[in-house]
Amino acid sequence: MNQKEVVLGVDIGGTNTKFGYVDKTGNLLAEGEMLTEAQRPADEFFERLHIEATKLFTTQKDQLNLIGIGLGAPNANYYKGTIEQPPNLSWKYVDVVMTMRRWYSIPIALTNDANAAALGEQLFGAAKGMKDFIEITLGTGLGSGIVANGELIYGHDGFAGEIGHTIVDPNGRKCGCGRRGCLETYASASGICRTVEELLKAPTPPSELREMNPQSITSKHIFEAAQHGDKLALEAFDLTGKYLGLKLADSIAHTSPEAIILFGGLAAAGDFIFIPTKKYMEEFLLGIFKNKVRLLPSGLPKGNAAILGAAALIWKELLKK
Amino acid sequence: MNQKEVVLGVDIGGTNTKFGYVDKTGNLLAEGEMLTEAQRPADEFFERLHIEATKLFTTQKDQLNLIGIGLGAPNANYYKGTIEQPPNLSWKYVDVVMTMRRWYSIPIALTNDANAAALGEQLFGAAKGMKDFIEITLGTGLGSGIVANGELIYGHDGFAGEIGHTIVDPNGRKCGCGRRGCLETYASASGICRTVEELLKAPTPPSELREMNPQSITSKHIFEAAQHGDKLALEAFDLTGKYLGLKLADSIAHTSPEAIILFGGLAAAGDFIFIPTKKYMEEFLLGIFKNKVRLLPSGLPKGNAAILGAAALIWKELLKK
Repeated sequence: MNQKEVVLGVDIGGTNTKFGYVDKTGNLLAEGEMLTEAQRPADEFFERLHIEATKLFTTQKDQLNLIGIGLGAPNANYYKGTIEQPPNLSWKYVDVVMTMRRWYSIPIALTNDANAAALGEQLFGAAKGMKDFIEITLGTGLGSGIVANGELIYGHDGFAGEIGHTIVDPNGRKCGCGRRGCLETYASASGICRTVEELLKAPTPPSELREMNPQSITSKHIFEAAQHGDKLALEAFDLTGKYLGLKLADSIAHTSPEAIILFGGLAAAGDFIFIPTKKYMEEFLLGIFKNKVRLLPSGLPKGNAAILGAAALIWKELLKK
Repeated sequence: MNQKEVVLGVDIGGTNTKFGYVDKTGNLLAEGEMLTEAQRPADEFFERLHIEATKLFTTQKDQLNLIGIGLGAPNANYYKGTIEQPPNLSWKYVDVVMTMRRWYSIPIALTNDANAAALGEQLFGAAKGMKDFIEITLGTGLGSGIVANGELIYGHDGFAGEIGHTIVDPNGRKCGCGRRGCLETYASASGICRTVEELLKAPTPPSELREMNPQSITSKHIFEAAQHGDKLALEAFDLTGKYLGLKLADSIAHTSPEAIILFGGLAAAGDFIFIPTKKYMEEFLLGIFKNKVRLLPSGLPKGNAAILGAAALIWKELLKK
């Protein structure tokens, strides 16, 4: 009987963990979800993951041949196969690859969420066939994965691609990382909320957001207000695009990508974020790069992007051999 | 008889062109120099280069076997093998590789000066054995070559590595590129002169540079004043290191290099530039990168660095095969 080769893609999140079996062309053949329960020991988590993934596999095993496992997780180190001091998990240091080796003797690889998204985009999404591009994930923070010469840049220590922590203004907004003025304090879901909070301090323009408690305004509220033509909300998107465009121009000067792909919650605001980002990016670009670099939305399906990214990580390594 | 394999390395400058035969370990076995005469047609130049290089080769031909040619030039495009609108040459567009093919049927490659310096450093200099590093050339301007995953980053169009044109301050100093606030308007030989010019507008501190016409002050004068303990000159070096350190921290967030190598005239100021650059770079670095990235002086011999860089470009390609 003809068996189909698949990999297991796993996306470890602060609350939920998603996993699924993905074939070479990015078809998600079976998927599951479980609570991460990150307050419990990591060992328990990986044992549960193994049991759940095996259960899911058993329902399909006549057709599938498992040949690799890819995992995406916060603060993951590709070289070491470890998770180190993840922000939303109580695990301090987990040797993920070694732990998974208890049950699996196939290739296993681990990287952070934004790098996985970049590889997912390259194999299955908007960056198919591209050798030089940058993936920007606009969630609560700003993550990034940089691909050059066809390969993801991990850097000397495995932590390359921290564009969210390049500095817009050394005297700017306080960042969770302890410094000031990092890009992600401006260009992210939380960043645009801070921008609105600042804009609300001025008496104009009028805005539907003025009727809310400033602390309870989310990026979704700002998006909805922008859809109503709210001037303050539109100004907040314009400023977000200005900061992002400025720093993307710097990124382009580093690696001269074919495209920059915006992924994640804030990117879903569409034209509200794409138009100002593109405008300012072009304005701040060095002449030789102007009108060359495409700004694209992610080509990965929404709910499954993270599983596909994790799967792409290991597919890419398997396809090299 | 035992023939030694060599490549021809050529550094095309605005005034002079240097060339020489370089073996696999970076020994310069014979070298020559000629006027570029860039106001004359490019065809003439390359014919003269061929004649001069052949003359030099003939003096040695019993021992040498020429297997490749590498060239470094301003505004060179690696992918196309062309020079396009070079700033100090009157040639508009030259297909260098095709022109050289008239006389040579061996591998020929061309890149810009800073990229050549990076490859020279990797094969023969301070970056030997490194897979992730950044070369910064501090001359009249600021050039850079970025190596990641062992390979130079050329980017989609061949123009990657323009760190000199990342933006320190969008409202800052006017740059030759037409924009404002580019790093090279602060961190370069011309940049430090502009910094001194600004500092001289204040009545203090006292400085030996106040006795000169501000327009005639060079980076060499500033270096000499710093050696005398001149406070204003030292402040200029401190500010130069601050701007450079700030933007190098951004570069590190992109590619997480093992080392950054400073090359060229201003780098020869030694501690005066290295100490403030390192201090501010560490201050502005994201936590995970702190105290990991070495700031090193070039390991290439001074007079021949450019020839060795151009030779390294083609040696690297030959050694891959």
